[in-house]
Amino acid sequence: MKSSIKESPLFWPAYLEGATLFVLDETLIPSKFHYVKVRNTKEAVSVIRQMKTRAFGQFLVVLNTFLLEIERAKTFAPKKFLAQIHKTATALNNSRPTFPFSEVTGIVVGWANEALAKGEDAPLYVKKNIFGYLMGIRERRLGRVRQLASILQNDDSILTHCNVSGELAMAAALCKQEGKKIRVFATETRPYLQGGRLTVWELKRLGVDVTLIADNAVGSLMADGLVNKVVVGSDRSCANGDFANKIGTYQIAVLAREFGIPLYVLTQPSNRIPTGADIPIEIRDANELLKFGNRRIVPGKVKGFYPGFDVVCHELITEPIAINVR
Amino acid sequence: MKSSIKESPLFWPAYLEGATLFVLDETLIPSKFHYVKVRNTKEAVSVIRQMKTRAFGQFLVVLNTFLLEIERAKTFAPKKFLAQIHKTATALNNSRPTFPFSEVTGIVVGWANEALAKGEDAPLYVKKNIFGYLMGIRERRLGRVRQLASILQNDDSILTHCNVSGELAMAAALCKQEGKKIRVFATETRPYLQGGRLTVWELKRLGVDVTLIADNAVGSLMADGLVNKVVVGSDRSCANGDFANKIGTYQIAVLAREFGIPLYVLTQPSNRIPTGADIPIEIRDANELLKFGNRRIVPGKVKGFYPGFDVVCHELITEPIAINVR
Repeated sequence: MKSSIKESPLFWPAYLEGATLFVLDETLIPSKFHYVKVRNTKEAVSVIRQMKTRAFGQFLVVLNTFLLEIERAKTFAPKKFLAQIHKTATALNNSRPTFPFSEVTGIVVGWANEALAKGEDAPLYVKKNIFGYLMGIRERRLGRVRQLASILQNDDSILTHCNVSGELAMAAALCKQEGKKIRVFATETRPYLQGGRLTVWELKRLGVDVTLIADNAVGSLMADGLVNKVVVGSDRSCANGDFANKIGTYQIAVLAREFGIPLYVLTQPSNRIPTGADIPIEIRDANELLKFGNRRIVPGKVKGFYPGFDVVCHELITEPIAINVR
Repeated sequence: MKSSIKESPLFWPAYLEGATLFVLDETLIPSKFHYVKVRNTKEAVSVIRQMKTRAFGQFLVVLNTFLLEIERAKTFAPKKFLAQIHKTATALNNSRPTFPFSEVTGIVVGWANEALAKGEDAPLYVKKNIFGYLMGIRERRLGRVRQLASILQNDDSILTHCNVSGELAMAAALCKQEGKKIRVFATETRPYLQGGRLTVWELKRLGVDVTLIADNAVGSLMADGLVNKVVVGSDRSCANGDFANKIGTYQIAVLAREFGIPLYVLTQPSNRIPTGADIPIEIRDANELLKFGNRRIVPGKVKGFYPGFDVVCHELITEPIAINVR
């Protein structure tokens, strides 16, 4: 029998209750554990603009916003329904530049057109499709958690970087339920400190033994034999297996190879981008580096360079733990 | 003709004027550029205990404190003189545990004994020896700056880590005077941020082109060909050429080798410790990692692991730029 999986709030950071979407405010973690209420497209755009949620959370907000709008207008005339779907899609597409919103909203618009062409009850048809789609993703992600848990062994000491949206924490917690002793070292992940703020918080919450380290301590830990596996996420994956992830992942991968430590990457395979060299790397505002919270580290005029991500070539990956999200 | 060297305040962070020692308060940099006045042993111990100065600065404070005490008591009876030297030495030795104070104070006590044995004017003899000793060190350190400047070439892009007490900044400034274009990338050096606070500040002050990066960006910069030399300092060096330096130096050295980028280390050779494996690594208080300034990053009970230094084996060094300080 499969063990039940304890869920991290970061695994599924937005859920629908009636006509309200509750979105985990990740900017407040770990100080506060708070969900923002979203009731319509306007509030959804606002929550995305304020970056209350990120990555997979944005994806959830986008899909659920259509459900909110369908719920709000119980009876739609077909023409009015399609207009509303388009209006919501446009508003979401224009919310922020970095996330490929139109890819996701395009799927929903496609379902709406399909329903009308088939003469189906369009709101119900779209609603069912969104639910089914989300449930499929959820099952596949839980499968990835189980797959990772099966790779992790008793007495493993895992290094992780940034935050892998609940999956590592849940796999480690599952291992614990199954009697495996697992220890995690989380890098703080400067400059945005996702490791210190999110990863440590969710691992502690699920009862996993976690220790925070400076990003600078990775090489030292490996040299001292304190780490025997590396687990990271992937922001973008390529056809050849290369992937981009939070800045710092690449140097961890090089160090892991230096010490023969296996590197596992939780990834959504994609064939859109041929190789890592084709991934455009976002150079982010240097102020995010020059400030800590709201406090400036270096006063006066200082240049900073902050590539947000780096690319790891597939030769450095031991095993991709892959699911198809889209 | 040799170019004159512009001096960084971090190169010689304590200077004597009359019966007052002015000690640069490095804890206030870069917000304030302020010297603390030290007039006697008690004030010297206080400035060391409060960690207003570090590394070479502590060394300067120790030697100059003897000069202050000699200055304060113009005429000494031989017995009283020796007692005073011993009293000062003991107070300094007990000021902090990490710095080898007794090695330095022992030298001065030796001179005092020597003077009395030879029937010399002991205060004058000790004073002359301290002055001569400091001048010798100063000349050798300036020599190291010139040596580094001669290695640096036009259009070099140098990565540095932590802070090398003025020497890199002065070498880069010297290159600039000589018409070489030099660019420096400084890691912020978490958790204590010596790079962000000290290195960027002193490089800017000497007019050197400097850009701050997150410690996580080193691999990415090298992969993108943005760095062609690495220059770091050394906290402790071994007989076989291994050295210990601020945590993070080791992984930079591994990455430099991965990309064939030469690594230069500014070092004081020593034969006291045979190899890097024999260097005891200080595990520092995790609170220094869990806090930023006075603000806690992760609330609640969180484990942190903070090795203060790591060890780089001599095979990873391209060229030691060595002087004998002691």
